[in-house]
Amino acid sequence: MKIVKDIDELRRDLKGYKLEGKSIGLVPTMGYLHEGHASLIRKARAENDIVVVSDFVNPIQFGPKEDLKTYPRDLEADSKLCEDIGVDFIFAPEASKMYHDRKTFVDIEDMSNNLCGAKRPGHFRGVCTVCTKLFNITGADRAYFGQKDAQQVAIIKKVVADLDIPIEIIPCPIVREDDGLALSSRNTYLSEEERKAALCLSKAIFKGEDLAKSGSSVSEVLSKMKEIISSEKLARIDYISAVDLTTMEDAKDFDGDRLVAIAVFIGKTRLIDNFIYRR
Amino acid sequence: MKIVKDIDELRRDLKGYKLEGKSIGLVPTMGYLHEGHASLIRKARAENDIVVVSDFVNPIQFGPKEDLKTYPRDLEADSKLCEDIGVDFIFAPEASKMYHDRKTFVDIEDMSNNLCGAKRPGHFRGVCTVCTKLFNITGADRAYFGQKDAQQVAIIKKVVADLDIPIEIIPCPIVREDDGLALSSRNTYLSEEERKAALCLSKAIFKGEDLAKSGSSVSEVLSKMKEIISSEKLARIDYISAVDLTTMEDAKDFDGDRLVAIAVFIGKTRLIDNFIYRR
Repeated sequence: MKIVKDIDELRRDLKGYKLEGKSIGLVPTMGYLHEGHASLIRKARAENDIVVVSDFVNPIQFGPKEDLKTYPRDLEADSKLCEDIGVDFIFAPEASKMYHDRKTFVDIEDMSNNLCGAKRPGHFRGVCTVCTKLFNITGADRAYFGQKDAQQVAIIKKVVADLDIPIEIIPCPIVREDDGLALSSRNTYLSEEERKAALCLSKAIFKGEDLAKSGSSVSEVLSKMKEIISSEKLARIDYISAVDLTTMEDAKDFDGDRLVAIAVFIGKTRLIDNFIYRR
Repeated sequence: MKIVKDIDELRRDLKGYKLEGKSIGLVPTMGYLHEGHASLIRKARAENDIVVVSDFVNPIQFGPKEDLKTYPRDLEADSKLCEDIGVDFIFAPEASKMYHDRKTFVDIEDMSNNLCGAKRPGHFRGVCTVCTKLFNITGADRAYFGQKDAQQVAIIKKVVADLDIPIEIIPCPIVREDDGLALSSRNTYLSEEERKAALCLSKAIFKGEDLAKSGSSVSEVLSKMKEIISSEKLARIDYISAVDLTTMEDAKDFDGDRLVAIAVFIGKTRLIDNFIYRR
């Protein structure tokens, strides 16, 4: 396994494999890898000749009041995890090299107006831009994303389709702790007490999914989920919404594929979770 | 030579050549090809194994009051010109296929605030988006652009650098009629009288370049150019500006590489021309 910091070096290395007709799988991450990332990397390993994991805390997807500075980093531990799974390249560039004097952005209309897009202005512009760069640098055939960031998956799929980027986007299921908490690098921020409180997210998600499957309406589902989260003292709801899975527009019924997504502050830590309902 | 309308078909055809290690040169055009385009195509032919000319009037780079509907089209004549030069593929997609329900845009800050960007809001967003799509569809190694659209060249170079698009941008000199008029598909709009009047653009450009080379100041150069154009009754100045060649910011001196660019209405037809001053 090779750890590469230089954009041109990675490009050269991968171009050789491309010319040999080898397939390349990319797992874009912000590092501090957990079992959720590992599940993506294993899938990439199984489906491609060459596996690249990018390990880059992307500054332009953080708002001015968000946790860019405190976001956890541990390249050494990440390297060990990647090496164990058989990754070929970790791409860990400096932010100054990725964005020397950035002027160009990839942005998406409408689909970023809701959910995390509404709460984090500019976030998806940063995500779309960095993913486009990573796709171009690697020339990957496939890229693997976790469904925990469901809006991100929907948006990246649309960017790829709209800009004709020659890559396949592969969404992978949410990975959870035994007690239900969705894995997130941000879980590391939680105190012991907050860690317990954070269970209200997955409880609400599981209950919401049960109710949706058994025929409850969107408003019934959302109000039950709100009730579960509100009963937790340390929790503050950022949003709870049901949207169309493709357009990310508000949905008032379950007459189509839906994403039910939540963002909840546990103390100062903002966590997200979701379930997908397919008609 | 093959005329391809389908995105996936072109992608498949070119992917085969890519895997054989063949180089691909792209000449993005809006069709109605003239000798200016021909010079780009010949250069692409000389430098690449496979030459693709895209022939597509890109709707999203036209403003609501601009000439999208009347923009001249002649695929048959274009095909003949391309075949004579030895082009391999003409890519002539339908607008509805390029933009079914577009949401994603590539946009650039600062560099599009001046010159044509200031006069044509959204124009460069449309140009950046379509070029990104064409680069992704073809996977070309090189793309050829005319220096008549000098701001476009500067912006596309920056987009390619910022988004790490694996393509080389090759600017080519302005081609002129014997009397000096820069070639443009829009010259076809001009009446006989307007065609004569349009000479004020190249006269101003040639005079401005002479003055700059002989040590005149930016304000002297611009005011002489304005004088030349203003003396033509059918002409109305849209802008006359000197900018830094890289940043496209207003320049007050010739202490660096500069672009001196003009846009002038001759009757209802908007024409552009420019010269580049290198220190």
